[in-house]
Amino acid sequence: MTSASGTGGALVKPGDAIGILGGGQLGRMLALAAADLGLDVHTLAPETDSPASRVARKTWVAAYDDAVALKEFAASVKVATIEFENIPTDAVDAIVAAGTPVRPDARCLAVSQDRLAEKSYFRDIGIEPAAFARVDTVDQIQPALDSVGGSGVLKTRFSGYDGKGQVRLEGRVTASAAWASVEAQRSIIEAWIDHERELSVVLARTADGEVRFWDPPDNIHGKGVLRRSLFPSAASPDVIERAKSTAKTLADSLDYVGVLALELFLTRDGRLLANEFAPRVHNSGHWTPDACITGQFEQHIRAVCGWPLGDPARHSDGEMINLLGAEANDWEKHLADGARVHLYGKRRTADGRKMGHVVKLRPRG
Amino acid sequence: MTSASGTGGALVKPGDAIGILGGGQLGRMLALAAADLGLDVHTLAPETDSPASRVARKTWVAAYDDAVALKEFAASVKVATIEFENIPTDAVDAIVAAGTPVRPDARCLAVSQDRLAEKSYFRDIGIEPAAFARVDTVDQIQPALDSVGGSGVLKTRFSGYDGKGQVRLEGRVTASAAWASVEAQRSIIEAWIDHERELSVVLARTADGEVRFWDPPDNIHGKGVLRRSLFPSAASPDVIERAKSTAKTLADSLDYVGVLALELFLTRDGRLLANEFAPRVHNSGHWTPDACITGQFEQHIRAVCGWPLGDPARHSDGEMINLLGAEANDWEKHLADGARVHLYGKRRTADGRKMGHVVKLRPRG
Repeated sequence: MTSASGTGGALVKPGDAIGILGGGQLGRMLALAAADLGLDVHTLAPETDSPASRVARKTWVAAYDDAVALKEFAASVKVATIEFENIPTDAVDAIVAAGTPVRPDARCLAVSQDRLAEKSYFRDIGIEPAAFARVDTVDQIQPALDSVGGSGVLKTRFSGYDGKGQVRLEGRVTASAAWASVEAQRSIIEAWIDHERELSVVLARTADGEVRFWDPPDNIHGKGVLRRSLFPSAASPDVIERAKSTAKTLADSLDYVGVLALELFLTRDGRLLANEFAPRVHNSGHWTPDACITGQFEQHIRAVCGWPLGDPARHSDGEMINLLGAEANDWEKHLADGARVHLYGKRRTADGRKMGHVVKLRPRG
Repeated sequence: MTSASGTGGALVKPGDAIGILGGGQLGRMLALAAADLGLDVHTLAPETDSPASRVARKTWVAAYDDAVALKEFAASVKVATIEFENIPTDAVDAIVAAGTPVRPDARCLAVSQDRLAEKSYFRDIGIEPAAFARVDTVDQIQPALDSVGGSGVLKTRFSGYDGKGQVRLEGRVTASAAWASVEAQRSIIEAWIDHERELSVVLARTADGEVRFWDPPDNIHGKGVLRRSLFPSAASPDVIERAKSTAKTLADSLDYVGVLALELFLTRDGRLLANEFAPRVHNSGHWTPDACITGQFEQHIRAVCGWPLGDPARHSDGEMINLLGAEANDWEKHLADGARVHLYGKRRTADGRKMGHVVKLRPRG
């Protein structure tokens, strides 16, 4: 198998430029890791003064449908990658058409951009998601909810992240109110899972099909947003092995190149249900640069460049805590408490916005 | 005590810009650490396309005596620091005159820029250097060598680094040849030390006088250039404590702010002799980001910004190996062997030039 948008081997040498689509904190942390490997980084994003652009050598401030900018950007780099999954696949196609590989490829993005396609894909390759049903109209809400057992979450199919565009539904519901809460967008209903634990598998895969895993963490969400990741997961070795195997099935099936994260629920009766995957570095892997020989940002760059993967072995236990909104105002307290502190340089603080994270380490148990 | 060029407390907030004078790999690694703390970085250096400039938000390509550029640079940042000690003190003075503190201050640089001033300073504050003698003229070479015991190294007083401008002398010498080898520059002769071990202390000091140390490493040089640092040092706890205490005496005496490194010889009869100090992050501390909770680059930024220091505790043992010149051509092999790999993005490879380093970690013993 070869990747749809690139070939194996070292596409890139130290000193070359690589491209990142997107300007947020993931792009910034990817850019820092790339620079530490001797690479130049070019970014393209619509926002001026984005976090990633401020550590990049060159930046295109351009819409994702700006054909001229995409072509220039593509011509300036040896390979490109993405920092968030809602980059339009047309932008990726334009870069590939200009002769520059993009890793992961447009198909991986397309599957992850549509919750219905994503869950259908899981089923197609033998990965069990929570029960789900399609909702195209307001009339389908109640039957869809009933079909997943009468307790679920209505979620827009497209563009949702961090709990946005989601509403919890139970029993008999007022369909019109639920429909308004997703702005009458095409949606799905997922069964509410009474889970014992949420965990994620973060892995890296090369174009040659080599896969390396970090030890999966347990994840704690609040209002649909990741609050903390505890590493390693307290799940049993059997659960961990099943989770890794499930994520590998997904990555292999997609012929994925780069870092990928799969979020899973462990049910009280011991089943692992796939929640969603991210075709990119992931918030639940933010502790890896601090607690492992090789972190997720560097590993993604290595995979995307066709370079050997690094060692993901973990030297410390601990937890990662997101700093949301005004929580980042306590930066000085966090700096003083002996934790690793990472701040994203965002100009504007908003309620619930991811502004930084801290990682508390302790000797490996 | 207050620093000559700044006051205690948080001068700087995340999102603010800080300045780095100098464009090399130390500046690049400082800039990456600063960005991870949410800071913007501005650089000023004479070289175009310098390693540090490529990860900075803003760059002035300007000579260190370009008054206009220095003033603009100073006005654009809340605090400035240096990435190598041979930045002219006039440039530092100009930035301070423009109202922007520079840490460490010009006096620390001045002492370190002149080997004679440095060694005299060591003596003045009760730190024992190797025996040394001043050499202003060719005629002084033989008497100076005799005065330090007949075996020594002739070194230029100014601008020497990494073994450049140095020649080994023994017994009766041809003074004219020795003098030519230092290009007839004002020099000193240092006694040749038959040492058991070379070690260095890397510490950070805040404007309030708090000092934190990394565990000192043993250092192995070749042709005057650091080749490897082994951490932790195999020296006895007593030696380590004396070494740290010596470095603290120096930092306190200079009212130093930031990371400072002191290189020491341990003689066969158990004396610790100060070799030289660096008023900056140091090659023998390059392993600290990979093996410790907080590495030297981040710690320097914290100190310079008036922020709380991080925890320098070490989670792993190991060694740091410099990649000089063509050694960096083996980058792919190094990436494959499980080590941490850091490449500096230098455009030109030259014999002996520091192109990168690798850090091999093992569980703490």
